[in-house]
Amino acid sequence: MRALISVSDKTGIVEFAKGLADMGVEIISTGGTHKKLEEAGIKVTGVSDITGFPECLDGRVKTLHPAVHGGLLARRDVPAHMEQLKELGITPIDIVAINLYPFKETIMKPDVTLADAIENIDIGGPTMLRSAAKNHKDVMVICDPADYDRALEELKKGEVPYEFKYELALKVFQHTAAYDAMISDYLRKQIDAPLPDNLTLTFEKVQELRYGENSHQKGLYYKEIQPFSGALVNAKQLHGKELSFNNINDTQGALGCLKEFEEPAVVAVKHANPCGVAVGETIAEAYKKAYACDPTSIFGGIIACNREVDKETAEEIAKIFVEIVIAPSFSKEAMDVLTQKKNVRLLELPDILGQPDKHTIDIKKVSGGLLVQDADNTLFDELKVVTKKAPTDKEMKDLEIAMKVVKHTRSNAIVFVKDGMTIGIGPGQTNRIWAVENAIRQSNFDTKGSVMASDAFFPFNDCVTAAAEAGVTAIIQPGGSIRDQESIDKADETGIAMIFSGYRHFKH
Amino acid sequence: MRALISVSDKTGIVEFAKGLADMGVEIISTGGTHKKLEEAGIKVTGVSDITGFPECLDGRVKTLHPAVHGGLLARRDVPAHMEQLKELGITPIDIVAINLYPFKETIMKPDVTLADAIENIDIGGPTMLRSAAKNHKDVMVICDPADYDRALEELKKGEVPYEFKYELALKVFQHTAAYDAMISDYLRKQIDAPLPDNLTLTFEKVQELRYGENSHQKGLYYKEIQPFSGALVNAKQLHGKELSFNNINDTQGALGCLKEFEEPAVVAVKHANPCGVAVGETIAEAYKKAYACDPTSIFGGIIACNREVDKETAEEIAKIFVEIVIAPSFSKEAMDVLTQKKNVRLLELPDILGQPDKHTIDIKKVSGGLLVQDADNTLFDELKVVTKKAPTDKEMKDLEIAMKVVKHTRSNAIVFVKDGMTIGIGPGQTNRIWAVENAIRQSNFDTKGSVMASDAFFPFNDCVTAAAEAGVTAIIQPGGSIRDQESIDKADETGIAMIFSGYRHFKH
Repeated sequence: MRALISVSDKTGIVEFAKGLADMGVEIISTGGTHKKLEEAGIKVTGVSDITGFPECLDGRVKTLHPAVHGGLLARRDVPAHMEQLKELGITPIDIVAINLYPFKETIMKPDVTLADAIENIDIGGPTMLRSAAKNHKDVMVICDPADYDRALEELKKGEVPYEFKYELALKVFQHTAAYDAMISDYLRKQIDAPLPDNLTLTFEKVQELRYGENSHQKGLYYKEIQPFSGALVNAKQLHGKELSFNNINDTQGALGCLKEFEEPAVVAVKHANPCGVAVGETIAEAYKKAYACDPTSIFGGIIACNREVDKETAEEIAKIFVEIVIAPSFSKEAMDVLTQKKNVRLLELPDILGQPDKHTIDIKKVSGGLLVQDADNTLFDELKVVTKKAPTDKEMKDLEIAMKVVKHTRSNAIVFVKDGMTIGIGPGQTNRIWAVENAIRQSNFDTKGSVMASDAFFPFNDCVTAAAEAGVTAIIQPGGSIRDQESIDKADETGIAMIFSGYRHFKH
Repeated sequence: MRALISVSDKTGIVEFAKGLADMGVEIISTGGTHKKLEEAGIKVTGVSDITGFPECLDGRVKTLHPAVHGGLLARRDVPAHMEQLKELGITPIDIVAINLYPFKETIMKPDVTLADAIENIDIGGPTMLRSAAKNHKDVMVICDPADYDRALEELKKGEVPYEFKYELALKVFQHTAAYDAMISDYLRKQIDAPLPDNLTLTFEKVQELRYGENSHQKGLYYKEIQPFSGALVNAKQLHGKELSFNNINDTQGALGCLKEFEEPAVVAVKHANPCGVAVGETIAEAYKKAYACDPTSIFGGIIACNREVDKETAEEIAKIFVEIVIAPSFSKEAMDVLTQKKNVRLLELPDILGQPDKHTIDIKKVSGGLLVQDADNTLFDELKVVTKKAPTDKEMKDLEIAMKVVKHTRSNAIVFVKDGMTIGIGPGQTNRIWAVENAIRQSNFDTKGSVMASDAFFPFNDCVTAAAEAGVTAIIQPGGSIRDQESIDKADETGIAMIFSGYRHFKH
């Protein structure tokens, strides 16, 4: 038996090669691997001795040779194949252990150049892996050091089971697919090319989850190859039980909204919808206000803070049960308070306000396909006052907060804000007026003197009427209905200042 | 200059090769392409003449040779590379036109065997593409026949621009990534292997959309390589304007719910939430009931039908404006009626009740990562009556409908059903009692004698109390709260029959 070994990640390779050599397997190798194995006292044949061809072009061509690939691809059960090998003086290769040039590690370097990246595109490695994997009936191919031990074990037992060889081949194609997806993604981003006709997305497993959205569904959590610094996947869990599928999904809802704010802000989320959002001079103040918005829904919810959680804030949070607290950091005193609670999960995300880059995509799964879009990274550009009355500076501040929150609430959504905090949130309605009515009815505060935001235009003037009755003094909405004028007239009639933002923020 | 041409898809290849030959480019080829080009009167050099090695192992090894890959990979700007080529007697290859063995077409055949599939894993092709693409500074590599014309044009103009060669190289890695993702996906499904640590998903573009969820977001629509027969992407548009991002997303919401029903059923959806669902003896009856549930929200909504839309149904639908009608078919008379309306989009999906297979995954995007789960394909198994009273058969039928609808409504969700139709839907609340209250308040019907479903357990007995006050006679919910007994006691006290399904259906 012959084994071809050529690895970039040298973990465990000496032990594996020794194990093979001890069984009488002939080892073929190349470059750095060859050197390392020889230094460990293992007898190694150079690939050039097999091919009769020198390694050339700075190592760009070493193994792309029939002596290697004939040895990998010949079907042992086809006599003609074996005769041809004999005629051509090619000996079969039965075991392959290869891993690839570190393309990922290369592009992760902050000062990487395109030339570096390109030089780290492995050609020979994937080809040998793919040849061996195609012929997995006859060749055991290992691209993951974690499989060395099992491979040795199976060899010691005798015939390596087909099922194992199949699994190893599957791993190879998963690996080469991910490798080329990474390369194409990198090359695409360099020139801002649009998404291609063949969209291939690759992710690395973070963890298996206990279950999916519900306990009868399996769930897994994956990360992008190069997530942006403020991405949720970069959050480090400091305390608490394992994250659940819904924890992660709901935290995403909170984080998206939090990233809208620069001043100290707290976003509380339940079932992916905001239930209380507030800004304050300090994070403790923002938390107390966010809590006050809706002390019922926040129970079992997610708390996202954009400043360090200090002792005062921690003591407030600790009064109720929440699933998650996510923040850029936790003071030592805050940790002392919060870690008393076994069930709260604490997530630290230092660059919590870091924004996705322009290549960030949003995905919605539909049956048999995928909807892909740019992330919704704009709040509004220019605002247009459409009523006789213009909002005051104070109203303007609250209107902006309201629009930031309604943008991250399921459609149709309406949000009421007063004094820097949401005092009514109406999420997820099939009829806009219901969203207005729910936001008012479900409020714990006097809506008089508040402002209102809508994620989309008003189809009729009934929403303005309801807002006026609730004492709203200013409204922000995208505008764009054929009946806009009716809403404007109603606002003028009821003394409301209304502005059009021009940006709809549906979130279905 | 030399060009290497080896294509499985022979579209336009003769014209391309002729164009090259006319410019004095030497053509190297192999196998069927070689034959076809020669038949067209083009002078072709065989790859074996270049390599001095015979094509062997039934074509498994043809081009995996330094004479080919040295010619592709040598950097023209590195004198040592060019000297080595000279010493080794290798001539550079400057142009590559290759496409791969039809793995996709092979696995799409209904009677495909694993051996067939494996034989159609191309090894030589991807290797040449990747070598050429790595060295795209010096090699123009074409894997898509659509690029032949541009390639010839650029060659005629003289020096091929680097930007074009880069784009072509990018296409190659997108193509090889998709190819190996397809292979690994196929191999994985054969053995029901779990999702891997390196998850690579590949899709084909269906169309660019006018925009994403909102007009300031770009949007695209992709399909899986092998979508299941009843998948939304297989729907054929018969009439109307181009589908929008939200059209597709909302239709997905409707379709998921529709697939729960076997009897004639209509699901109306607005903003991804059901606003009216009903069953009937005929599809026309089901539509009239679904419409009656909420004649306001259905405006501009999605109508999904699981039987042919006939003239009667079409005439009813035509009375209002809806965005989409999706059905297994439309009778000629129905088409005559509906195509009068310019703005309604008609989608035909013959196998509309076809179910996803066990490998179907659901995806939720989070920042920097992905949540992946099994689709929620179970409604419930065994039902447990937990109250003194058991539901009647009629109540049982309505309870099942209610659970089918609440499963596809955003959490927290509550659904009321009476006589085979939803009479109240409370979607997307952060507090369960609000969902109950909204469903009751927003109902156009007398809720007395209706049944109620909840997507998750009741945390307190207030939901049962509210239901009792509304005249509900039976409730279905998963159960599982530590306070279940309080809800059971309240149901017993108010004469309500309650069953536990054991299956929560959160949809955040």
